[in-house]
Amino acid sequence: MKIHQYKLEELAQLVQGELIGQSDLILKGLASLEKADVDYISFVNGEKYIQDAQLSKAGALIVTSELTSKLEQHQNFIVVDNPYLAFAILTHVFEHKITARGIEKTAQIHPSAKVSDSAYIGHYVVIGENCIVGDNTVIQSQSKIDDGVEIGKDCFIDSHVTLTGFAKLGDRVRIHANTVVGGEGFGFAPYQGKWNRIAQLGSVKVGNDVRIGSNCSIDRGALDDTILENGVIIDNLVQIAHNVHVGENTAIAAKCGIAGSTTIGKNCILAGACGFAGHITIADNVTLTGMSMVTKSILEPGTYSSGTGIFENSQWKRTVVRFRQLADVPLTKIVKRLDHIQAQLEYLESTLKLRK
Amino acid sequence: MKIHQYKLEELAQLVQGELIGQSDLILKGLASLEKADVDYISFVNGEKYIQDAQLSKAGALIVTSELTSKLEQHQNFIVVDNPYLAFAILTHVFEHKITARGIEKTAQIHPSAKVSDSAYIGHYVVIGENCIVGDNTVIQSQSKIDDGVEIGKDCFIDSHVTLTGFAKLGDRVRIHANTVVGGEGFGFAPYQGKWNRIAQLGSVKVGNDVRIGSNCSIDRGALDDTILENGVIIDNLVQIAHNVHVGENTAIAAKCGIAGSTTIGKNCILAGACGFAGHITIADNVTLTGMSMVTKSILEPGTYSSGTGIFENSQWKRTVVRFRQLADVPLTKIVKRLDHIQAQLEYLESTLKLRK
Amino acid sequence: MKIHQYKLEELAQLVQGELIGQSDLILKGLASLEKADVDYISFVNGEKYIQDAQLSKAGALIVTSELTSKLEQHQNFIVVDNPYLAFAILTHVFEHKITARGIEKTAQIHPSAKVSDSAYIGHYVVIGENCIVGDNTVIQSQSKIDDGVEIGKDCFIDSHVTLTGFAKLGDRVRIHANTVVGGEGFGFAPYQGKWNRIAQLGSVKVGNDVRIGSNCSIDRGALDDTILENGVIIDNLVQIAHNVHVGENTAIAAKCGIAGSTTIGKNCILAGACGFAGHITIADNVTLTGMSMVTKSILEPGTYSSGTGIFENSQWKRTVVRFRQLADVPLTKIVKRLDHIQAQLEYLESTLKLRK
Repeated sequence: MKIHQYKLEELAQLVQGELIGQSDLILKGLASLEKADVDYISFVNGEKYIQDAQLSKAGALIVTSELTSKLEQHQNFIVVDNPYLAFAILTHVFEHKITARGIEKTAQIHPSAKVSDSAYIGHYVVIGENCIVGDNTVIQSQSKIDDGVEIGKDCFIDSHVTLTGFAKLGDRVRIHANTVVGGEGFGFAPYQGKWNRIAQLGSVKVGNDVRIGSNCSIDRGALDDTILENGVIIDNLVQIAHNVHVGENTAIAAKCGIAGSTTIGKNCILAGACGFAGHITIADNVTLTGMSMVTKSILEPGTYSSGTGIFENSQWKRTVVRFRQLADVPLTKIVKRLDHIQAQLEYLESTLKLRK
Repeated sequence: MKIHQYKLEELAQLVQGELIGQSDLILKGLASLEKADVDYISFVNGEKYIQDAQLSKAGALIVTSELTSKLEQHQNFIVVDNPYLAFAILTHVFEHKITARGIEKTAQIHPSAKVSDSAYIGHYVVIGENCIVGDNTVIQSQSKIDDGVEIGKDCFIDSHVTLTGFAKLGDRVRIHANTVVGGEGFGFAPYQGKWNRIAQLGSVKVGNDVRIGSNCSIDRGALDDTILENGVIIDNLVQIAHNVHVGENTAIAAKCGIAGSTTIGKNCILAGACGFAGHITIADNVTLTGMSMVTKSILEPGTYSSGTGIFENSQWKRTVVRFRQLADVPLTKIVKRLDHIQAQLEYLESTLKLRK
Repeated sequence: MKIHQYKLEELAQLVQGELIGQSDLILKGLASLEKADVDYISFVNGEKYIQDAQLSKAGALIVTSELTSKLEQHQNFIVVDNPYLAFAILTHVFEHKITARGIEKTAQIHPSAKVSDSAYIGHYVVIGENCIVGDNTVIQSQSKIDDGVEIGKDCFIDSHVTLTGFAKLGDRVRIHANTVVGGEGFGFAPYQGKWNRIAQLGSVKVGNDVRIGSNCSIDRGALDDTILENGVIIDNLVQIAHNVHVGENTAIAAKCGIAGSTTIGKNCILAGACGFAGHITIADNVTLTGMSMVTKSILEPGTYSSGTGIFENSQWKRTVVRFRQLADVPLTKIVKRLDHIQAQLEYLESTLKLRK
């Protein structure tokens, strides 16, 4: 494994930033302000980090121009408008790259599969009939690419992934370890007290630039396909049921679950552990906060929430007691009755004054 | 891969339906009403789909008899009482079948294991000591069948499954990719500020016709076994802890979690992401709606629910403020006080009138 | 597989208990009181199990001294202060041990990796560059130990585990099947309407005596590491995001999810399916009950809870209606208004009496 080293001027060029200080300063990594050493570069994500930056031992700092004057302890800077974005770009420079190409001898590839010469197929990968694997795609060890699955260019499939159900993946798709795409949807017809399996005949269509985390389950459709549009990003342990359709650039955090045939719009943000009933529609530009319970369609953009947060335990027990009484307490009527009583009292009071 | 083709009369026979129209019409798949082409058959799941059916390009339709008169655009029908069930049956006809039999050379099978000649064991499968694999069972690539595990006939085990803990599976069991059955339960005894592992000595007993989704964890019992009775169906990403007992034909949707030693009755329906405390009992014929939080036993059949759904975010914040005040608001007393005040007022009013 | 057999006196010695009865009684396993046969030993976990103990067919019982007098049907006992702890210790005696050592021929080990001679490396395991595997460590079949990962002594890694991201594991770490440690964290910078991946450069540090269940995802850090301190125990299907820090001896039950950069203290107990927002801090000695929704830091030890439990469904619908009215009902004002109205009434009543 090579150790990456870069001169400060090279990094400045990569982020189109202005270099201040020693142009040939050698940097061998990115680090947080607290942990950085002299051969590391760090970034200052706003005024609130100014103290951490002053104390940092980092050899160079990525900053906005107005903050440089407050950092007299430092000599070396890359000045940009958006330090967070510059940091994001530089992470790719310092990332450990997989340079291997070709097919490991231990991989089992069906003769009918078409695997690009520039792809990398890891140990013990199994690739089935009529599969396609595009240029520069990396499939890490022990993954399973089942019959009929097609993968585009520049994709990354980590170890222990199962791609099945004739799934089709676009370009620059990244799927993390132990995830299942194209597994059979939960289709069962009740008949005479038993559950009868409905074979799932649809597939999964994954667009370009889609990212799926680890330990996710993305099921194939019943007849039509399950669809993840371009640019969708999904965190770990997410459940996407059969015939769900997720719109472009929507972000889904860990532990969300979307039930069958639900449509999520574009540019949505679903925070952790949200649950969606089946057969509903979420409009574009909707944000759900964590652990939201979505049982009906949401037709307007905006931010929506569920849940009640934590209480100290004995307070919570008393709250639950009250909550369980709520059904029998006519809340809106209470306010009206109070108003009415108030009015009656005032009438009585004025009547009494008249007769004094 | 063969392409399945069937004549309309063959399909009608399979679902015991009445054929209307061209008996030798060739159909090569099932499709939704919207997506179907002329060589596909679709189904009309009730009057509410009549418009979709009229517009559909499907070559043939599965319908109930009274709807045929409204579908003059179509000539070819299979008439049945239950189109959904007929559709369910036909999905099996059009499903891509795994026809491979025998043991791939790359599989590692312990000499003491008994694997049926009619089973299929995929690439890189590992089968341990004294295992049993029954007739016609398919074990897809890269799965692990650990020592002492027994699998019945006509089972399907997808890739990357781990069966361990001496689990015993019945017949016609289907387990989807990347699931773990028989993993060690979460048994720890606290002692002197540390956690001491309790080795789990029980097993998992999976009945006939059980279906388990992908990325599930079904733990082995501590002493007695964890039990899934005949006909249980489980979706993806479900947690079944040690010594849980699930009754016949119960359906468990994705992301449910059942804590240790809890018993679920027969014919229950657990919607997505429900959570069950340990050591409780759920009666037969209980339905839980999504994200229910079950902390006590349920002794009566019926439908039960938790949660409060979503609100627009600023409304939600105000609701949470009120909810957090609830513990200190004597709700039921409020109603009594209002009634009492009402009575006092009326007394006062009548007293005043008497003295006018 | 050998069958374990022990004499009662051997077991008594192992738990430092007092033997009563037949010292050379042969016992071949532990069992529950209900299921035990004459060659099994069981334990009586307190007075409430006395009836089960009286009826049990177990050949010997682990009890506290004062209960022996109530168990006249039995002759053979191991007397201890803590039967549950003694049971916990004996489970290890009866556990099926993996005795295999060495590297299976089918494993792929990079020449630069250092694997201890006393380790066991199972079939189809892949071990990468510069990896280290310590003494007596067992890595079960089909797992992936990626470049730069280091594993200490006496560890147990089950099948289908993916260890990546240069993760470092201490000694006596147990990781159950199909779990991912060191996967890429969910780091994305929004820019011009799209999500831009931030390569994750941190790692995962797992301390000694850590246990991680099956199907978990523990992500590598963005710059600094994700940290699980010594003695942490984690159940199945748990999500630990990048840069989470879990304190010593904390226990995390199934289906919990902790978002990025959150710190959990020592000796905490997180019950099933709790969700934690990112960038918050949980103090030491905090207990959260099941399905708690933690959105803010918790600075004081204690027990905290969320949620409202289940209702019969029609009651629940009525409760939800009221809950949705709560935002517009000034609860605390209601009580004040009632008090004020009460006071006004009393004044009126006394005024009327004066004038009688």
